Amino acid sequence: MVEKKILLIVVDGMGDRPIPQLNHKTPLEVANKPMMDELAKRGITGIVDVIGVGIPPGSAPANIALLGYDPYKCYTGRGAFEALGLGLEVMPNDVAFRANFATVDDNLIVLDRRAGRYIAEADILAEAINDIKVEHAPEVKIIFKRGIEHRGVLILRGSGLSKDVSDTDPERENIRIQFSKPLVDTLEAKKTARILNEFTLKSFHILSNHKANFSRISRGEKPANIILCRGAGTLPTIEKFNERYGLKGICIAGVPLIKGVAKAIGLDVLNVEGATGGLDSNLIAKAKAAIKATKDYDFIFIHVKGADTASHDGLIEEKIKFIERVDKMIEIIFNELNEYEVYMAITADHCSPISIRDHSGDPVPLLIYAPNIIPDDVKSFSERECLKGGLSRLKGLDILPILLNYAYKMKKFGE
Amino acid sequence: MVEKKILLIVVDGMGDRPIPQLNHKTPLEVANKPMMDELAKRGITGIVDVIGVGIPPGSAPANIALLGYDPYKCYTGRGAFEALGLGLEVMPNDVAFRANFATVDDNLIVLDRRAGRYIAEADILAEAINDIKVEHAPEVKIIFKRGIEHRGVLILRGSGLSKDVSDTDPERENIRIQFSKPLVDTLEAKKTARILNEFTLKSFHILSNHKANFSRISRGEKPANIILCRGAGTLPTIEKFNERYGLKGICIAGVPLIKGVAKAIGLDVLNVEGATGGLDSNLIAKAKAAIKATKDYDFIFIHVKGADTASHDGLIEEKIKFIERVDKMIEIIFNELNEYEVYMAITADHCSPISIRDHSGDPVPLLIYAPNIIPDDVKSFSERECLKGGLSRLKGLDILPILLNYAYKMKKFGE
Repeated sequence: MVEKKILLIVVDGMGDRPIPQLNHKTPLEVANKPMMDELAKRGITGIVDVIGVGIPPGSAPANIALLGYDPYKCYTGRGAFEALGLGLEVMPNDVAFRANFATVDDNLIVLDRRAGRYIAEADILAEAINDIKVEHAPEVKIIFKRGIEHRGVLILRGSGLSKDVSDTDPERENIRIQFSKPLVDTLEAKKTARILNEFTLKSFHILSNHKANFSRISRGEKPANIILCRGAGTLPTIEKFNERYGLKGICIAGVPLIKGVAKAIGLDVLNVEGATGGLDSNLIAKAKAAIKATKDYDFIFIHVKGADTASHDGLIEEKIKFIERVDKMIEIIFNELNEYEVYMAITADHCSPISIRDHSGDPVPLLIYAPNIIPDDVKSFSERECLKGGLSRLKGLDILPILLNYAYKMKKFGE
Repeated sequence: MVEKKILLIVVDGMGDRPIPQLNHKTPLEVANKPMMDELAKRGITGIVDVIGVGIPPGSAPANIALLGYDPYKCYTGRGAFEALGLGLEVMPNDVAFRANFATVDDNLIVLDRRAGRYIAEADILAEAINDIKVEHAPEVKIIFKRGIEHRGVLILRGSGLSKDVSDTDPERENIRIQFSKPLVDTLEAKKTARILNEFTLKSFHILSNHKANFSRISRGEKPANIILCRGAGTLPTIEKFNERYGLKGICIAGVPLIKGVAKAIGLDVLNVEGATGGLDSNLIAKAKAAIKATKDYDFIFIHVKGADTASHDGLIEEKIKFIERVDKMIEIIFNELNEYEVYMAITADHCSPISIRDHSGDPVPLLIYAPNIIPDDVKSFSERECLKGGLSRLKGLDILPILLNYAYKMKKFGE
């Protein structure tokens, strides 16, 4: 039985800007969230530059920072984290890419970057290109695994590879696919770009002649006839969480990328039924899973995605409602635990203002509750109130040390 | 037509300390400045350590930092920036010095470091020492150009030179000039010191025998009979502003040094008639120039000097009045533009407390206005109110990323 329950709750994209339709308030200000407000009263608040002042954070480096790791050292491209999140093993020299099934014409012009998004035959198509050989480097192992919808990951495994190569995914439609180029003048980068290009053409050859795609076409669907790759990455060399802090940690998240980040730093990853990483995610199930996990783990990292999804889609009401559901999730967790044993931070990995439907570099609001903390004067949790918070202005990687300090888990520096 | 107007307004030396004659208020607190107070209400405020906590900033590194560049990496001595500001070309290996015309006696004792300050014959005297040869290194080109009043710049151009040499200007009077010494044990530094010393003696020989100085003496004026140098510098290797941010930027400043800093980072520099860099500078003309520049430029950097001049001269009332004129300048700019397109920061490059008549390391007040920003509770702009600001405490180089983030011009870090 673990005595101290240390919880980091990350509400993806929660921070926002004043919205005219909300009388120039933010979704977090408008939302009915009695639990977060109560914790703000009893705890301490502040604002956080997750990566650096004014810098819009990508999802992977943002969560790396919130878990206490320097994103400038530990973020080595998104691909490897995605691969880990999909349950693949990633070796130290592997180069991993985020991949999409896409639809191209015979001239390799991209007709649909997502091949219609829902690909019933994704398993069988993935199987057809997994473990194929490229002639440029037959010793290099090609590992392909599908992810959610049109997504997947590609891993190149072998010696003499490099993550410094450009994408094949043009990230736009009605133009030709890109051919990967070395981004640095090394043999490794040149070799990797050649392999990726050969794989890409082979994927087109194999997939466009695959019977599953003939079926798709006959049903009036777009063929998933090529793999487009981006975000080449290697697995960073990271001191594992339990080595660094002497704590047993677990991640409860729906999004494969976040699971991958958690695995990379050595957290266990729990798969919770109904935790979809979408607006419909079952947050009650996540709350129950977190409560259960406190019996065996010192540190619980809970990531919820829906607020960010709502922002990307411009859905104001849905964002407010999702935040209210997050509040309920936190209430269930907090009320179930002994308040004298809870050390909890609630924050966002970045702001996603609905007005721009993307990540921004605004500081995110932060709330820390600990039974032994000196509270500030802030009595509700919002972007505006946190400007007056007693924690002042922090960096993303400051949060975990603060939590662990109150839980008496930080090592003394010197004597 | 540029859509977003990003403005950085730097009021040189604006910050101060409580002044007994002002009932222990500061000039900024006493000044009538309705526009800055209005923007403080609608925007967000904070305090800024322009270089680092407690460090009194020099003018060049301070403005480098406010423009978003690390002063510890990009400040390589004042000379090169001064030279650029006077319209000279500065090459990558040039060593540039700030220079003074001075008056020495036959024993090279400095009688007046400024040779009376106003030197009608400065052009003809500068011509007499420009492009002379030194015997130690005849291949090295000597470039001398006069500046304002007694000031000028010296450039040494050739291979094998170093900026690591000491000054010849003793910065005091009634003592002998200094001979330059190498500050590091390299051939380059030794060579450069020898060249500078030979140039100095040659300048004395040429200038003290120049007929223009005979005229000065006959009129009862001090002869400008030697050049004293300080602040050896090279041009830093800097990623240009438009490459870094994809923005077209322009500088509106009266002071050559600031123009030089702007040129070094790749801003265009506008010469505004009546923008003298003094207490008498025509700030209305600067406002109009800024408004016009918003049509072609994304980013406008406006630097006004007068508040600092007043501080150096101990002029309390003049400092207050200058700040009031700055407020008027900002009002003209803000009212002319569409408030939904303005992203504006107002700050100082350093405090210049009248009580010490010099730069200090006190944090400077900062105000940021953007149409989509969450305001804090601060309702007027002053050193004291900004202590309570929602931006909390920042570094100088944080300001530009914050402005650019709100203008949606910052690149995401990772994915």
